[in-house]
Amino acid sequence: MPKQVLIMGAGKSATTLIEYILSYANEENWEVTVADLNVELALKKTGNHPNSKAIALDFSDEKACGEAVFNADCVISMLPPFMHSAIAKHCINYRKNLVTASYVSDEMKALDEAAKKAGILLLNEMGVDPGIDHMTAMEVLDDLRSKGLIVTGFESFTGGLMAPESEKGPWKYKFTWNPRNIVLAASGGAVKFLHGGRYKYIPYHKVFRRTEIIPIGNYGEFEAYGNRDSLKYKELYGLNEANTIYRGTLRRPGFCRAWDIFVQLGATDDTYLMDNVSEMTHREFINSFLYFHPTDSVEIKLAHALRMDLDSEEIRRVKWLGMFDDTPVGLNKPTSPAGILQHILEKKWTLEPGEKDMIVMLHRFDYLEHEVEKTLFTYLVVEGKDELNTAMSKTVGLPV
Amino acid sequence: MPKQVLIMGAGKSATTLIEYILSYANEENWEVTVADLNVELALKKTGNHPNSKAIALDFSDEKACGEAVFNADCVISMLPPFMHSAIAKHCINYRKNLVTASYVSDEMKALDEAAKKAGILLLNEMGVDPGIDHMTAMEVLDDLRSKGLIVTGFESFTGGLMAPESEKGPWKYKFTWNPRNIVLAASGGAVKFLHGGRYKYIPYHKVFRRTEIIPIGNYGEFEAYGNRDSLKYKELYGLNEANTIYRGTLRRPGFCRAWDIFVQLGATDDTYLMDNVSEMTHREFINSFLYFHPTDSVEIKLAHALRMDLDSEEIRRVKWLGMFDDTPVGLNKPTSPAGILQHILEKKWTLEPGEKDMIVMLHRFDYLEHEVEKTLFTYLVVEGKDELNTAMSKTVGLPV
Repeated sequence: MPKQVLIMGAGKSATTLIEYILSYANEENWEVTVADLNVELALKKTGNHPNSKAIALDFSDEKACGEAVFNADCVISMLPPFMHSAIAKHCINYRKNLVTASYVSDEMKALDEAAKKAGILLLNEMGVDPGIDHMTAMEVLDDLRSKGLIVTGFESFTGGLMAPESEKGPWKYKFTWNPRNIVLAASGGAVKFLHGGRYKYIPYHKVFRRTEIIPIGNYGEFEAYGNRDSLKYKELYGLNEANTIYRGTLRRPGFCRAWDIFVQLGATDDTYLMDNVSEMTHREFINSFLYFHPTDSVEIKLAHALRMDLDSEEIRRVKWLGMFDDTPVGLNKPTSPAGILQHILEKKWTLEPGEKDMIVMLHRFDYLEHEVEKTLFTYLVVEGKDELNTAMSKTVGLPV
Repeated sequence: MPKQVLIMGAGKSATTLIEYILSYANEENWEVTVADLNVELALKKTGNHPNSKAIALDFSDEKACGEAVFNADCVISMLPPFMHSAIAKHCINYRKNLVTASYVSDEMKALDEAAKKAGILLLNEMGVDPGIDHMTAMEVLDDLRSKGLIVTGFESFTGGLMAPESEKGPWKYKFTWNPRNIVLAASGGAVKFLHGGRYKYIPYHKVFRRTEIIPIGNYGEFEAYGNRDSLKYKELYGLNEANTIYRGTLRRPGFCRAWDIFVQLGATDDTYLMDNVSEMTHREFINSFLYFHPTDSVEIKLAHALRMDLDSEEIRRVKWLGMFDDTPVGLNKPTSPAGILQHILEKKWTLEPGEKDMIVMLHRFDYLEHEVEKTLFTYLVVEGKDELNTAMSKTVGLPV
């Protein structure tokens, strides 16, 4: 009897995973089922491989999900993070192992005991960030500690970017991962970290202005903004003697100051729905966040509100996105500012055929050797093959 | 048999209410019970009036609250708003009328049908704002409409401030109402309003910089920042033809720009707890939100982060509050930034004996009369008698 592998979700990050698993399917005697709401997408990714099956699955249909899990020997969820815990419950129920590439949520954590009782594994954080970051950081940390060295500082940065040859336009950025998560980046609460022995907190509306420039290998300079809660890594990584612990996200320089325009406007807010979306243009969307004036242009009101020059690099980037255009947004129901912004950004920030992305990860370790402060950097750069076989899909999928 | 009136909560806003009700108690044959967690406070407010009783009541004790409601004929809740719905459930259960001075919460709204079935009244928004604002605005709106005039704009502003003779220090402000609500003001979501026929949205971190200056009578100038959702007043007040609807809060000029320092720092965040609070000084509290530097002072880091001069009016106000002092905060458990800020502010912003507060309310009505645009202003100013018999307590308590 072949082993049944169930992969739930055939989106951007799942391409390489599906390909890799299918490449071993014959040799390992696996039957691989790829389930997605959009069966065409699943079919595209399985490519009619003889050991594969593509099925349509509505993940909000609890019964259908339960059945799919029941028929599997091992489940891999590549769904959006909030859907994992429902899948995990089925896995506990039918005693199936589950793997995801997402952070352990509070809901997932709450299932720990039930999973142990059921004798199954709920293995999370097995992607790139979280995933490869943990593995590579711990490898170095364990090595330093095994030599009796004391780690005094740890910083870690990851970014899903465009490969240099595909960096077009002023942002040098496109969506290579869930666009919603990128629009909402850092909005979940204050950034918390440790610097020079002091606890530091950055509110959301300052995150994209508290950046640093980081050169990496021959790849030029990157810009880093802080990730949510670095403090918990003190315990998780055993960094008891570190007085600096900081985790961040990498972009190309200038991204953050320009992105901050949307943050300052309130255009990344996901807590309320805007009306009149069906008649709204890009320009009117931006105007909703600016003071009323019968004649002042949206451009000058924006420049004034943010104390920027009209010919500044930041305003140029916003203009490049078409934000001042009289183009209809193209949505037809009440949507949050974040949802509207995402929809507009997707018009420009979607990979075109042949475009290549890039994953960049850097760790910095400060440690004491014979009472001398030393620093060790390690980094990883992975470029994608094309718009489907992305570095993101490779680095998320292969550890899974 | 005398009628039993139960007043729950003997805090700042309840003083005048208790006094007023007791002044009619004999004539109306009422027995008035004032319940508070702190029985001393209740006793202080009832002043041993023969028709009064002060009782200690733990409002988290459901059974005790139920009993107190059971023994009453009419219940008045002056408790913090989040506690009202639990009281309302007891009122429905025992068929007692309830009055509060707070906004109708979603929880309260959900009890509407049950209250109607029980044949009782859950009468809310009977204070000053909400309360007198509704009553005075609707009086004018009804009058204008009865004359066939079309209302094209409505703006309304209220502030709990200090009477001119008691305006000391640069802020010209002290807490005369629940301090927590003041520290968290506007943090609940974007400010939404209608201006010139356009929907406008202001995110929290811009609210205190989108202000206007409003002169009122002989009381000088005030500064207004926007209240949460003015859009819903279109329907509530029947302002179908208004193209401007805006509600705001009044402070003395300069308050908002200085308060914005705390907002920008993230010091009003109530979503996480800070550690090390028991050893924290005022200065360290502010420093937690600023970049790390081994020698730069907290003052210069703050001035730089907010692009302000060290001798600016705003920094002067922060300094006046003692925020740069090495004084211990004086709390001994993990507390949110907002909780710590409130605690520090209470050291300076608490009414001293003899100090008088002031309530200021202004409505602006724009209307068309024979196709000519006209504007009508109405305003109300109430000064307090002393630090206990405040204008706040009078204007909240008497409508109740």
